[in-house]
Amino acid sequence: MRATWCEPYDSIMFQSYEPPESGQATADRVARLRELLARSGLDAFLVPHADEHMNEYLPPCGARLAWLTGFTGSAGLAVVARKAAALFVDGRYILQAPKQVDTKIFEVLQIPAAKLSDWIGKQLKPGSVLGFDPKLHAAPTIDVLTKELEAKRIKLKPLPRNLVDRVWGRARPRPPQGVVVPHPLEYAGKPAKEKLAELQATLKEDGQDAVALTAPDSIAWLFNIRGSDVAHNPVVLAFAIVPVSGKAELFIDAAKIGPEAKAHLAPLAKISEPVALERRLSALKQAGKRVRVSPGAAVWFTRKLSGGKARVIRAADPCVLPKARKNATEIEGARAAHKRDGAALARFLAWLDRQSETGEIDEIAAARQLETVRSETRALKEISFDTISGAGPNGAIVHYRVTTATNRKLKSGELYLVDSGAQYLDGTTDVTRTVSIGTPTREMQERFTLVLKGHVTIATARFPKGTRGVDLDPFARRALWEAGLDFDHGTGHGVGSYLSVHEGPQGIGKQAMVAIEPGMIISNEPGYYKTGGYGIRIENLVLVTEPKKVPGGERETMSFETLTLVPIDRRLVVAEMLSTAELDWLNAYHARVADIIGPELGPADRAWLEQATAAIVER
Amino acid sequence: MRATWCEPYDSIMFQSYEPPESGQATADRVARLRELLARSGLDAFLVPHADEHMNEYLPPCGARLAWLTGFTGSAGLAVVARKAAALFVDGRYILQAPKQVDTKIFEVLQIPAAKLSDWIGKQLKPGSVLGFDPKLHAAPTIDVLTKELEAKRIKLKPLPRNLVDRVWGRARPRPPQGVVVPHPLEYAGKPAKEKLAELQATLKEDGQDAVALTAPDSIAWLFNIRGSDVAHNPVVLAFAIVPVSGKAELFIDAAKIGPEAKAHLAPLAKISEPVALERRLSALKQAGKRVRVSPGAAVWFTRKLSGGKARVIRAADPCVLPKARKNATEIEGARAAHKRDGAALARFLAWLDRQSETGEIDEIAAARQLETVRSETRALKEISFDTISGAGPNGAIVHYRVTTATNRKLKSGELYLVDSGAQYLDGTTDVTRTVSIGTPTREMQERFTLVLKGHVTIATARFPKGTRGVDLDPFARRALWEAGLDFDHGTGHGVGSYLSVHEGPQGIGKQAMVAIEPGMIISNEPGYYKTGGYGIRIENLVLVTEPKKVPGGERETMSFETLTLVPIDRRLVVAEMLSTAELDWLNAYHARVADIIGPELGPADRAWLEQATAAIVER
Repeated sequence: MRATWCEPYDSIMFQSYEPPESGQATADRVARLRELLARSGLDAFLVPHADEHMNEYLPPCGARLAWLTGFTGSAGLAVVARKAAALFVDGRYILQAPKQVDTKIFEVLQIPAAKLSDWIGKQLKPGSVLGFDPKLHAAPTIDVLTKELEAKRIKLKPLPRNLVDRVWGRARPRPPQGVVVPHPLEYAGKPAKEKLAELQATLKEDGQDAVALTAPDSIAWLFNIRGSDVAHNPVVLAFAIVPVSGKAELFIDAAKIGPEAKAHLAPLAKISEPVALERRLSALKQAGKRVRVSPGAAVWFTRKLSGGKARVIRAADPCVLPKARKNATEIEGARAAHKRDGAALARFLAWLDRQSETGEIDEIAAARQLETVRSETRALKEISFDTISGAGPNGAIVHYRVTTATNRKLKSGELYLVDSGAQYLDGTTDVTRTVSIGTPTREMQERFTLVLKGHVTIATARFPKGTRGVDLDPFARRALWEAGLDFDHGTGHGVGSYLSVHEGPQGIGKQAMVAIEPGMIISNEPGYYKTGGYGIRIENLVLVTEPKKVPGGERETMSFETLTLVPIDRRLVVAEMLSTAELDWLNAYHARVADIIGPELGPADRAWLEQATAAIVER
Repeated sequence: MRATWCEPYDSIMFQSYEPPESGQATADRVARLRELLARSGLDAFLVPHADEHMNEYLPPCGARLAWLTGFTGSAGLAVVARKAAALFVDGRYILQAPKQVDTKIFEVLQIPAAKLSDWIGKQLKPGSVLGFDPKLHAAPTIDVLTKELEAKRIKLKPLPRNLVDRVWGRARPRPPQGVVVPHPLEYAGKPAKEKLAELQATLKEDGQDAVALTAPDSIAWLFNIRGSDVAHNPVVLAFAIVPVSGKAELFIDAAKIGPEAKAHLAPLAKISEPVALERRLSALKQAGKRVRVSPGAAVWFTRKLSGGKARVIRAADPCVLPKARKNATEIEGARAAHKRDGAALARFLAWLDRQSETGEIDEIAAARQLETVRSETRALKEISFDTISGAGPNGAIVHYRVTTATNRKLKSGELYLVDSGAQYLDGTTDVTRTVSIGTPTREMQERFTLVLKGHVTIATARFPKGTRGVDLDPFARRALWEAGLDFDHGTGHGVGSYLSVHEGPQGIGKQAMVAIEPGMIISNEPGYYKTGGYGIRIENLVLVTEPKKVPGGERETMSFETLTLVPIDRRLVVAEMLSTAELDWLNAYHARVADIIGPELGPADRAWLEQATAAIVER
């Protein structure tokens, strides 16, 4: 295949490389918001990074925080008072946020050191009223804040209409109109009818009259539908109410449902306009029903449903666990998706090795090339997130997103980190490789090998039932710890099946308290980041196997099947730092990659793959 | 030293081997309790394993649960209703409890599968009243139970006097009268005056007017005093109130304080009779004070202190963390205590090897011998818990306590597990060794070596600040998991300095969420238990070192110094199952034991030690 990195940037499909709009318009927008505060008799208003579904990716109409402040991070909350304003972000965004927002207007503060209620207590007098949009905050968050502010005699007031929306006015984008498509049984593996019946059996067992579903990926999974309402995650923005018996009700803009989706959904659910949701919740409340709502759902649901004899049961979304435990069809789909994706990655890495010698490739060109080889599979529906394409010091920025303003050449003697994924009908992928451009330093090799040891120690883990992600995370870190090093992110997150690339409840990390179960797909991605120098991350997706008894063992144990099939850069491996078992794993993994991916490649790429997966022989 | 195992049992010092009293008197006692229920207008009463201090070891007057039911486990709760009664225990005691109690009277149920509020809801009608002693239940427990029973319209009623005490009457033992002794500065390392000043600075920083201390080990640590009110832990049963400024007040029976203790305490605290505590708490409440109380303290304190303008701050006992972080003197003391204890253990193990050939030694004789060699140090103040002395299948019972009824010979071809500890003025020890009697089977050796691998992986860990016990626990299990094996207890617990052998907040285990800090002492005790076969446990105490940067590293990391100096049975080690690093650790550990302990022994024991610590050379 010919290199395409010299093509103009406007042929990009799924990723844009424009720098985000800076917050120039902020002053005017904040001023208008403050006028509204005054007119509404409020002293301040909360603007979170959140929508009605608590999505990770917001539709444009939900990007209120970015519109108001200019801050584009994936988590944050602004509070605008009559005179002062603040933006609260976590450690990931403490460098980015002050560059994006007007710090004369917004004081940027880092949680958890800085506390929202402390700032409010300092800025507002006792007796003040703080407005919020109950559709954008989870119930437990509001409960805690209410309690903290009570002590300061400040009242939290839910507003019927979001103040930012009123300022935004007609310029605010319309809700997304992504077309709903049925997700075929050959990929979903289980008819929606069966999923609904099992869900209703769960409700019956738990003594609940209905469940209100607010998470788009739960709804997409339950009804076997997919959409394109938000970037990268093929979910459908909708709400649903499933009663313990009888037909479910799906609240969704009818314009999004074509004839095919209509026929698919007809036997499963009554279709209603989103505006009907409020009436339906009120009716459940009037009837004194026990309705299950996820603690992560917006407090608006809890409020609409509780009172009188009615009772809200705050319990986990009942779709979350069955969705996380992939069925046999989804597992087969994941294997096929990874074979396809692995072949695309091999083509990309072979291209990279050939082209990087020119010294002319930059981060955007590489990301574009990766998207190109994936689209050439003719199966690519979307990329599963904006590719992290970081050369040299940019690789050390964990949440780096390349733009024309930050774009950097891939220089000889540096490392290049590329974290990317694809959405295929049969599965979602997510893979990170760290590639040596030219000759690496000994330090780069040693630290890469420490990260590799962590990766292999996770990949080869065997563990009993009940083991949680927190119980595996240390295996990814021990080799780094021994060298006085570490990385400041989790080791792994759950991944959906042609759904969200970040999917709970499982994960591998210090807060991952959920038991790992067979069929779950998790990322295994330890790293190391030298600020101003380079970044290293090695990420494969792994599948949790069925429990079995090993010979001589007493307890059933599970292990991981590595799904991702992409060479790990041998030029960065210090073989003598690996134990025999670790080296055996690497060689066996590479042999498997060569076996499965090799036949998918043309002669030149296959030759590249052969040397890239050749066994390392210990001296 | 001559063997003493053939001496009569009545020369025992700190441990009794009598089987516990069975619950024969139960019927009469329960009948009288039910009469009281009827007369008091109550429908049921709660009898927990707990005293006013939430001690692990109860004084005889606090052993209400054992007196009423016959159950002697270290955790449990009985509920006696007019017609029915139940005893709730955890998995550790589900075999023992039905043997000890009259199951015609008490239904024995296992938590968490069985739930107290469910049982109560089934036995009591709506409108019923359940009595409890507010001095014996932690506040959060009562909060949760109140909420659960509200839904069933059952009321919880605190009683001014414990109903079991009323039945027990004059036969109930008097509160313990252990004499208070000052703990010399040469062992404590910091004057009580300084500890009090630092505590008051903490209260000031946290904006609290006073703290109510209810944990005996906190009080013993804070005032540098020790006592003998409960078995094995040299604590003083007392309460204390420390105001943010001014003199502390200690509530304690004056009869326990001799002239020396009086002189020691005079500058530190006003001494008051325990009966004055209630009045003092009421005064704090009347004055509207903000008083800090541990969430683990009895709900009685919260109730006495809250209301009006007064506010109870439920926050961790402020002595707990400084007590856990041993100072330089305590650390030196710990090293000295372990040298002394290690020498005693070496004498014991040498004796065991010589005597076990006779086939005549039993579990009690061995435990008695161990107590004898420790008392011969002339420094032994107490054993730190009842020695677990388990031969063959008894070794597989994790909480085994040998009695004349269960006593078993140490037979050739079996394993012997001995878990014991000592209280010395300079430190508390806790050590477990598993010894091969005669020739072990290959399976025993292999599983011992798997446990040893876990032990070494903990002993050699290096980890950054913020690492919690939960982040180390998996290292103790990985080798067992790979073989399909595991153990069902935590890997380690905190240990006091001439104080409790179980001391929080740190630990190593699945629920150990507290950051490990320099100066903490923790046990490292992975195990393996083959029910009906044998038990394996290897336990050393380790000290957390000061953080430092290793060469080439970026972050400060801590590690463990192993304090315990006792040979690990080489006959049970399969050298080829160990990595080079693991074998190196074992050989270096044994060399250190020989160096430090050897000079403390006579010629015969020294000869034994030499072969017991000889390096294992890999073939």
